[in-house]
Amino acid sequence: MVLGSIPGEIPLFTGACVVIILLHPDAGLPQRSSVQAALTDLDLQVEETRLGDRLAFVVTGGDRTLPADALARIPGVERVLSLGSTKSLVERTADHGERQVSLGHASFGAGRVAVVAGPCTVEGVDDLLAVAQRVKAAGATALRGGVFKTRTSPHAFQGGGEQALDRLVEVSRAVGLPFFTELTDPRQVSSVGERLDGVQIGARSMQNFPLLTEVAALGKPVLLKRHMAATVDEWLLAAEYLLNGGADDVVLCERGVRTPDRHVRSMLDLGVVPYLKRRIGLPVVVDPSHAAGDWRLVPALARAALAAGADGLLVEVHGRPEATRCDAWQALPPDDFDALMRDADALARLTGRTLCRPTSASAAAKASSSSNEALSA
Amino acid sequence: MVLGSIPGEIPLFTGACVVIILLHPDAGLPQRSSVQAALTDLDLQVEETRLGDRLAFVVTGGDRTLPADALARIPGVERVLSLGSTKSLVERTADHGERQVSLGHASFGAGRVAVVAGPCTVEGVDDLLAVAQRVKAAGATALRGGVFKTRTSPHAFQGGGEQALDRLVEVSRAVGLPFFTELTDPRQVSSVGERLDGVQIGARSMQNFPLLTEVAALGKPVLLKRHMAATVDEWLLAAEYLLNGGADDVVLCERGVRTPDRHVRSMLDLGVVPYLKRRIGLPVVVDPSHAAGDWRLVPALARAALAAGADGLLVEVHGRPEATRCDAWQALPPDDFDALMRDADALARLTGRTLCRPTSASAAAKASSSSNEALSA
Amino acid sequence: MVLGSIPGEIPLFTGACVVIILLHPDAGLPQRSSVQAALTDLDLQVEETRLGDRLAFVVTGGDRTLPADALARIPGVERVLSLGSTKSLVERTADHGERQVSLGHASFGAGRVAVVAGPCTVEGVDDLLAVAQRVKAAGATALRGGVFKTRTSPHAFQGGGEQALDRLVEVSRAVGLPFFTELTDPRQVSSVGERLDGVQIGARSMQNFPLLTEVAALGKPVLLKRHMAATVDEWLLAAEYLLNGGADDVVLCERGVRTPDRHVRSMLDLGVVPYLKRRIGLPVVVDPSHAAGDWRLVPALARAALAAGADGLLVEVHGRPEATRCDAWQALPPDDFDALMRDADALARLTGRTLCRPTSASAAAKASSSSNEALSA
Amino acid sequence: MVLGSIPGEIPLFTGACVVIILLHPDAGLPQRSSVQAALTDLDLQVEETRLGDRLAFVVTGGDRTLPADALARIPGVERVLSLGSTKSLVERTADHGERQVSLGHASFGAGRVAVVAGPCTVEGVDDLLAVAQRVKAAGATALRGGVFKTRTSPHAFQGGGEQALDRLVEVSRAVGLPFFTELTDPRQVSSVGERLDGVQIGARSMQNFPLLTEVAALGKPVLLKRHMAATVDEWLLAAEYLLNGGADDVVLCERGVRTPDRHVRSMLDLGVVPYLKRRIGLPVVVDPSHAAGDWRLVPALARAALAAGADGLLVEVHGRPEATRCDAWQALPPDDFDALMRDADALARLTGRTLCRPTSASAAAKASSSSNEALSA
Repeated sequence: MVLGSIPGEIPLFTGACVVIILLHPDAGLPQRSSVQAALTDLDLQVEETRLGDRLAFVVTGGDRTLPADALARIPGVERVLSLGSTKSLVERTADHGERQVSLGHASFGAGRVAVVAGPCTVEGVDDLLAVAQRVKAAGATALRGGVFKTRTSPHAFQGGGEQALDRLVEVSRAVGLPFFTELTDPRQVSSVGERLDGVQIGARSMQNFPLLTEVAALGKPVLLKRHMAATVDEWLLAAEYLLNGGADDVVLCERGVRTPDRHVRSMLDLGVVPYLKRRIGLPVVVDPSHAAGDWRLVPALARAALAAGADGLLVEVHGRPEATRCDAWQALPPDDFDALMRDADALARLTGRTLCRPTSASAAAKASSSSNEALSA
Repeated sequence: MVLGSIPGEIPLFTGACVVIILLHPDAGLPQRSSVQAALTDLDLQVEETRLGDRLAFVVTGGDRTLPADALARIPGVERVLSLGSTKSLVERTADHGERQVSLGHASFGAGRVAVVAGPCTVEGVDDLLAVAQRVKAAGATALRGGVFKTRTSPHAFQGGGEQALDRLVEVSRAVGLPFFTELTDPRQVSSVGERLDGVQIGARSMQNFPLLTEVAALGKPVLLKRHMAATVDEWLLAAEYLLNGGADDVVLCERGVRTPDRHVRSMLDLGVVPYLKRRIGLPVVVDPSHAAGDWRLVPALARAALAAGADGLLVEVHGRPEATRCDAWQALPPDDFDALMRDADALARLTGRTLCRPTSASAAAKASSSSNEALSA
Repeated sequence: MVLGSIPGEIPLFTGACVVIILLHPDAGLPQRSSVQAALTDLDLQVEETRLGDRLAFVVTGGDRTLPADALARIPGVERVLSLGSTKSLVERTADHGERQVSLGHASFGAGRVAVVAGPCTVEGVDDLLAVAQRVKAAGATALRGGVFKTRTSPHAFQGGGEQALDRLVEVSRAVGLPFFTELTDPRQVSSVGERLDGVQIGARSMQNFPLLTEVAALGKPVLLKRHMAATVDEWLLAAEYLLNGGADDVVLCERGVRTPDRHVRSMLDLGVVPYLKRRIGLPVVVDPSHAAGDWRLVPALARAALAAGADGLLVEVHGRPEATRCDAWQALPPDDFDALMRDADALARLTGRTLCRPTSASAAAKASSSSNEALSA
Repeated sequence: MVLGSIPGEIPLFTGACVVIILLHPDAGLPQRSSVQAALTDLDLQVEETRLGDRLAFVVTGGDRTLPADALARIPGVERVLSLGSTKSLVERTADHGERQVSLGHASFGAGRVAVVAGPCTVEGVDDLLAVAQRVKAAGATALRGGVFKTRTSPHAFQGGGEQALDRLVEVSRAVGLPFFTELTDPRQVSSVGERLDGVQIGARSMQNFPLLTEVAALGKPVLLKRHMAATVDEWLLAAEYLLNGGADDVVLCERGVRTPDRHVRSMLDLGVVPYLKRRIGLPVVVDPSHAAGDWRLVPALARAALAAGADGLLVEVHGRPEATRCDAWQALPPDDFDALMRDADALARLTGRTLCRPTSASAAAKASSSSNEALSA
């Protein structure tokens, strides 16, 4: 983590952090001593130095967290700057190249691109099955669908809960696509966590730290959406909670940033894709559906995301948007999804990666026809 | 809630909502019929009308939620507009004037202004007691102090947990000031909820809906902070979760909005105070400390909040900021808090309200001296 | 322009605008009459109608601008809504498909993609010539380079002025690439406007309306950058000033939106590309260099822009960034630009367009070698 | 100016600036030499130093502008930090306490608070005279009114131009209140600049640098509005253009910041008032009318601004808002302005300042009655 980017605390680890405590231009000997005393009280190792005409202490080690803004309140201190630090867990993921996270045939990162598709919310089983078959036929390798929803209004449809999860599991197994679904409450981890293939953390839950901690301990792949107003550092520190809690397989998902504009629901931050690729090793995928909030803009944004280097997409698809109770305006019709998947393949190749494919079409067809029987039985 | 301000769903209640479904300029008879059929399927009562040279349906009633964006995907529909609706629970609080919420001698709203003060985080009991005595002496009527923290980084100090709560309860009782503290996890409601005087919902938890639902059922006063990137409608809908879940005593707390600027940590939205006073009946208080992020700006912002009509303040005060592990830069020294409280009294009177006072100084002194003994015993 | 999106005024054109003036639920006959009288004073044609249980006036025509917020202040009026309007000039550009704007061999829109490249600022003639030759060799069809700069600080380098324009013209002619350069002052239009191939309006000048009016009258192609905090409607209305002032060949250039984030300088809004393609007929190009503010992110964002359907790119390239006085961090090295142009060609084809090419390589080489002689003579 | 806050260039002045050039952790001797050579080429005085386990150069002087991001592109350099610099002109205004700017009886700063009031736009002379008399009677000491407007749409009313200026001058003289009006084009400075009492720079023109330069040379008091998306540093650097160009009497005017919210038009940044009071000596006033965009919120925000320490207010007042062509929704009725002025007096005293008063009521009444005759003649 670049020190100083998160105000308030600078985590200090022995030997690897350089922090400069700059004294006021007119700080005399007494102030110098009082600052030094305060640093000693904190068990910090310091060296005094001169920078131009200014005095400063350089902190070079210590065994505890250094509260930078507390130090800044010691009389005589003008500024506290950091020149670098021990890397965070999420930054250390870059040390061995790109990490690949897999969910069945869906692999994200390290040269593989995968597309997760499905409805916003699990409603009727027929619609879900129809969508699942269509997106698999088009090349999606995982399914998405919400059962526990975070809805802005308490009067809005809150998701189908465990019954909807039953349907999602059933369709997932029938069609042969693993699924991600969102958890919203730490108590859900123990009650239903084991039934999930992959856990999604929704944008509004990105800083629900008790939830992150519970999910981390579950040990399943986690898709962590960025809050619509989170800085990149806040997002990475949410991932840090996951890694710190034991999760290995974390996929970051950019889904748009809130701005004053209204032509899109959120502004998709595609610069974050190459930025994160330089900084961390975890896969980064993009959700163009929630960003756009308008299905007509989804294919262009999906193409842009892959061209920018995204390791995958999360796309909402629905065959009958006029009948859905959630986010109807952003659901891509299946025909448009077919066209998008053709572009996805070309774009993955153009950028030197490979688009993951589901199990063979015949196997899939067989699975889906027998699943139809099972479900209609 | 002004319909249409939250995209996606329009809650419909019989007889009280006017929604216009505008057809495309070139919509002919077949499209008119198909839209009408779709509306009938949704059990909506509609009337056809002509607006200038355009055809429209006016929906005047029905018994279910109307998914506006789903309707907008019916071929032939150009736009769905709402002209008004049954009011939300939070809006209905304005029907009987201002609602007053009280916590001991601290009363917010309906002509009363109260100041809640204390440290960011409960650390040592000595510091806490010292601060509590000072802020009470200056005129604060309630105490604040965090024990369960939502920290951006997992490596930052996470709060003292239940042990810190023990200290907070002890000091609160000793000094004679009720307290607000933040809950961050729905499981804390059953484990420690009964021990709290008032519950704070932190900005990052504003849309933690499972938490809101549990806290609502607890029946204690709730101070609901606005997320630093929430619109006013989102904030009011979070309050709607509380009211809908059974909470009566809800206080809204503005604490600043994230912007690209860096001279303050968040930009305090004081326009929201008179805006909400026109729209709802619940008290609205302001937290200048988290907004500014800099103690030197806190007094001016606190005065501004009261001049704008805020029903109270939430102020961080600490006697030894250089020794605190959390938000040291925003902690107001006790002397500055004394001066602020003198202005608060004058500003409450200037705006036609009364500043709440703690129990008599002598009683307080007695309580605090005996508490010192108890605590040092 | 979607009515109501720009508060304050609704332009009314006879017969083509539907505005609804909704009366208060408790508006009686006297208020109805007073509203009607006010509308009559404004020479507006109105019809009275009933929407559910509410009264409203529908304005169907008139010969002047309707100040919507003034109407809203007539006692008894609750809201003023618009259901649609005569299209603005910039929206009417979509009536005949996509408009193509050309500058020499660089054509933007209607199936053609062109790349404009060059240094941020015209400094030494040697560096400029070297860059111009390199970008042409790589496939750029126009040159960029600033001579009148809009610098945040008065102490920063303000651009080379007319002397730098001399150099830019000289190099442009020598290499055989037309150029865009920015004008910042309406007085420059008469003094040097005729010497420019294409005029750039910088982001900070997007709402410099006297400048837009003068530039529009010049009759040259205009590249209109979006202000870093402008909504799309504000940007389109700036283009409306150009079209209204006589300009035909307007290219819109997205260059990133200001957000609280710091990992990029501005957040590139690629959703605006497909959005505008649905709404207007003018070409839309993208400047990834100013958005990123970091050359390492430029190729990914440039690819994303083309994949989203942009009609061209504006890219800063410099052979010796460590020696430039302006925006050194975002200048792409020529080798990276070569690689980008290969991708640009593939992406144009993938999205069904053709990348413009400069005059033949041999001709270019010849031109550039002779130009070298001319310049060194 | 805090160095580093404006990316791209660090102005260097001999002896007063400390810049640290931190080398990469693995930078060896050759890189050290190449960096040193580059610095020597720039005529910079450097010292080599060691910070913890890192090598760095400390730049302590030189005679030219240092392009920090260019230095950062020298191979081997990791970061360029500044520890402080010679102060900008606008920061030096704080060296001798608060500067007072006066326009007739209206004095801003150094213990004096003044209110500027009037219509958004100069339309009919009768309305203007009526408003001017009312606001003077209530205690305003200067008049505002736009004649050259910056309107988002070319189809909106563009202001009355020089004819409207004639009316404004006439009414100003008749009533005995000096006036501010906005200039939008550098050419207006020579054509009409001498007729103005004070020049307003509108938010959209804050970075119209040619305009700032011309206005600075005029030598009149300048009221510089902050752009709705400008950071404080950008705003101060716009003021720097004015001071650098010769202006002495500059008043900064906060008018609200654009955010995603919609309950106010812009979010008034009152934290900037105490922030600037600590940093510069120029007066800071607040425009609550444009921030709110809604007259019902203006009194509360105006009170808040004064409580925060603002040196004055700029308030839009109109007697017949339903008849105005510009910003009708924010015009305060005169009766509400009367009430506001009573609060303004109390708040000025509460914060230790004095509200400026116009010339004596009888003189004003006499002036206004004779002016009525003159105007109706």
